[in-house]
Parts: sequence; structure tokens; C-alpha cells
Amino acid sequence: MNVDRAPATRSIVFHEGRLGRPERERLLGQQGCAVWLTGLSGSGKSTIARALEAVLYDEGRLVYVLDGDNLRHGLNADLGFSPADRRENVRRTGEVAALFADAGVIAVAALISPFASDREQVRRAVGAPNFIEVYLDVPLAVCEERDPKGMYRKARAGLMAEFTGISSPYEPPASPDLVLRTAEAGVEECVQSIRRELQKRGILPAP
Amino acid sequence: MNVDRAPATRSIVFHEGRLGRPERERLLGQQGCAVWLTGLSGSGKSTIARALEAVLYDEGRLVYVLDGDNLRHGLNADLGFSPADRRENVRRTGEVAALFADAGVIAVAALISPFASDREQVRRAVGAPNFIEVYLDVPLAVCEERDPKGMYRKARAGLMAEFTGISSPYEPPASPDLVLRTAEAGVEECVQSIRRELQKRGILPAP
Repeated sequence: MNVDRAPATRSIVFHEGRLGRPERERLLGQQGCAVWLTGLSGSGKSTIARALEAVLYDEGRLVYVLDGDNLRHGLNADLGFSPADRRENVRRTGEVAALFADAGVIAVAALISPFASDREQVRRAVGAPNFIEVYLDVPLAVCEERDPKGMYRKARAGLMAEFTGISSPYEPPASPDLVLRTAEAGVEECVQSIRRELQKRGILPAP
Repeated sequence: MNVDRAPATRSIVFHEGRLGRPERERLLGQQGCAVWLTGLSGSGKSTIARALEAVLYDEGRLVYVLDGDNLRHGLNADLGFSPADRRENVRRTGEVAALFADAGVIAVAALISPFASDREQVRRAVGAPNFIEVYLDVPLAVCEERDPKGMYRKARAGLMAEFTGISSPYEPPASPDLVLRTAEAGVEECVQSIRRELQKRGILPAP
């Protein structure tokens, strides 16, 4: 975890324990990281996250999914959908992903995270080599056709303000670490792409 | 994790994965929980947290320390020391502790957390049986004598506003799960008290 950022007020000492990330990673037999799934609503983020979790669990890996929707019931329950609140939503989730990575856990974040600069901030918080930005590149028309939560329909009917892709912008990653096209590739294929990326980086052992 | 709390806006579906907390706990061979160390600055929270981490690590447990000072460099970097900011500091840390407990990790939180109602909110977020409130009951005079960060001196000199115990209140727990008196008991003794409490609750196997 990057700890070079100064707190808002007061001089605060950073306490290092006798045990650090390497010891936890040794205990778990894996490297901590953050797999960051970004894309429109309906692009398949939660589905891919849960499928990745299941595949890695079966190999004995400790994975924890940070689902944007779920976090809005707890940590981010005070935030709405204005641009400022979306930024803070991504910032906090990114800091939590950094903590999980530091704990040695494979954190899988699934949230729209529409703004490029916010995702870059998360990359810095987690630390570049262990942050994997995965762009779910799915045409808006496909997401809208899927509409798993019926929200595009509501947004088109004007019943939902600030809905990403309709009335709020989405900034695609300029250079994502991985691109998944769930309109064309199946879930299993997408999961294996992420798995190979984790192996390539040494986060998972090579096959 | 308690997910019965409604998000601030918009209907948000809670996504349950195929894998849940029981599977992660089985993988790790331990139960997730939050050991919450509360007390004045200088009462020994960080010291006890790190010592507990070391003892449990040597037994193969996955422990992660959420140190209040460290979190102010990241997740809580936007917060100061007003009562409202202290509340939010504790709320967020509590939600993160709940996530770690849900991940199957033994989270050890070390932060002053001066207000009783905030700690009760954390108890609800984590879930009562796996939340262990540990009160470091140390006389102010002893903490001030220790003054490991030189902050009491500054506070007495009027150089630090809203300092707990001096110019900001501390509400001791009415019925903590455990009381540690670090002015009288050694670090190892305190750590073993926590360990016994975890065994009593079945979070760690009985000796």
C-alpha cells in the first residue's frame, strides 16, 4: 500500500508492524492484488467477478469481491450519484482494495468507476504492479438490451437521473491492462484471460 | 456482514456470490472477526494490536491490523478531528473491519474511537458475536506520562485542539467484551486475554 500521502491534518506517525505484507503473502501462498473491473452497468462486472472468485477459490486462493452495489449498503451508504459522490465512491473502494491487497488478498472490485482520473488514483493507492485494470468493453446497446436491473428502461423513461451511459459520462480506459468483450466472449473465457494476466505478473504461480 | 441497511439513494440490488463467508472461513481455517481496541492515545492500542498479530501469525492465522493513524493516510485522509469527522472515521473503519471479517480475516482495529454510540454502530455492522470490544483502561495520567508521540505535551501547551482526554471527550465502554489495564498488565498477558476471549467464542480453536 502506498503510504506516502499526508493526512489532512495533524502530524500522524505511520506504524509499521513487525509483520508485513510479505509474511501474509507467504502464509497465504499468493500475492495480494486488486483486479479492477470497470464498465457500464450491464457489462458483466459482477458476473465476471463472481466467476473469477469461484475459479480461484477452487484453486485454494483467498479472493474477496468488492461489489460497488454492495458497498453502497455499508461503507458508501452516505454517497449518491453526483460526479463528486461517484469520485468519492471510487476513491474509498480503491483505498479498501489497497488494504485488502496489503493483507495478501486477491481483491476483485466490480464497480462502474466511470472517470479515468479516479481509476488512476486507485492505481497509485494499490501500487501499479498489483493493480490490474480490466475494461469490460461492451456496446451500450448490448448493455441496454441486457438491462439486468431494469435501470436502462427507467433511465430512458427519465425516471433515473445521472445514469452512466445515458445521462452521466463513462470514460473508457486509455490503456487498460486487459480488455474483455463480454458481448463476444463467454464468462469462462473472460475469467481465463484474467487468470493468465495474474500468472503473467507472478501474482498466481505459472501453469 | 449486516446488509439490512438501505443505501442513501436509488434501489440497489445486493449481489450474493456462490461463495460466501463460510467457504472463505473453511479455506483459512479460522473465523472472521473484528477485535476493536479502544482507549486514549498512549493506552497501548497499536502495541497490543501488533503483538496480537505476531502471536496469531505464528499460529498460522491471517490477521490484519487496521491502525487508525495509518488509515488517516489513505481511506480517511480527508477527515480531521472534529466530533463529526471522528464519527465518520470510526464508521468507515468499522465498515472496513466488517468487510475483513466477512472475508474471513481476523481484523484488529486500533483507534481511539471515543464515542460509545459509534462503537455500537460498528458492533451492528460487524455482527455482535464476531465483534470484540476491548477497552484499554489506562489512567489519563499514565498515558500522559508515556506520551509516545509527544502529543499530550503539545495539547497541554495549547498547540493541539480537540485532543482526546484533554480537550475532546472519551466515553469509556459501559460493557466492553474485555478490559485490559496496560498500566498493570504486560503486553504478553494482555494478548493472551484476547486470545482466550477468541477461543471462548470459537473464533480460534480451543486449546
